Amino acid sequence: MGKSILNKVKINSLKIIRSPNGNVIRILRKQDLKNWNFKEAYFSTIKFNKIKAWKFHLKMTLNLVVTKGKVKFVFYSKNEDRFRVIEIGEKKNIRLSVPPRIWFGFEGMSKKESTILNLTNFQHSSREILRCKKNNIKFNW
Amino acid sequence: MGKSILNKVKINSLKIIRSPNGNVIRILRKQDLKNWNFKEAYFSTIKFNKIKAWKFHLKMTLNLVVTKGKVKFVFYSKNEDRFRVIEIGEKKNIRLSVPPRIWFGFEGMSKKESTILNLTNFQHSSREILRCKKNNIKFNW
Repeated sequence: MGKSILNKVKINSLKIIRSPNGNVIRILRKQDLKNWNFKEAYFSTIKFNKIKAWKFHLKMTLNLVVTKGKVKFVFYSKNEDRFRVIEIGEKKNIRLSVPPRIWFGFEGMSKKESTILNLTNFQHSSREILRCKKNNIKFNW
Repeated sequence: MGKSILNKVKINSLKIIRSPNGNVIRILRKQDLKNWNFKEAYFSTIKFNKIKAWKFHLKMTLNLVVTKGKVKFVFYSKNEDRFRVIEIGEKKNIRLSVPPRIWFGFEGMSKKESTILNLTNFQHSSREILRCKKNNIKFNW
């Protein structure tokens, strides 16, 4: 993929501190990201086979962890007309860091509803988001 | 409970933004807390009927959300020799904000392992935590 903007989506393994009564799993320290200040944390839930697409953040860097179920994330580079697909389940202990200015969508892949935790550096605002309809970017979900 | 320090543990209902494909649930905005700056996010897992107790943070304000299962939190005021018990399941959509200088412990209450999300304003450090053994504070778990 070389210099594709899609390479800026980073897959980070979460550090697990094991303990007999239950582990501790580190999601994110402020120092892990440059020029990132916490503004908001929220969950997005997604039902089985349902799709939320497409969104494009002008400023927000997302930090995504699947806390329940399994989710397929699709990232799209318009300039390259190229997709990147990353599927994550709750067992994977992975954080996706997604910089702004990348089109993305996601689909619920487990029969029970899936939940995504998002830690962001901008408060949710419709002025900061571009949207387009699912069919306006052709992807074979 | 009047002026008990235990009243400083705040129970906040999370705001739910409903949507047909899956809801959005707001956990925390920076502006919701005074003098609080994000430093670290982590999950703590706790097995069924297992107990992690007791801890006392000198500086850290905890923001706790149960993302899986059900957890009993117990807070203890040494000065008053008084307990406060708060049980939360993943369905409750509640955030506990716990200021520093309160002894606390927690127990896993669901047969599957439970998971707690914690958003904190200090990085984990043993120098910032006092600990005592479970039996040193008498509580009927």
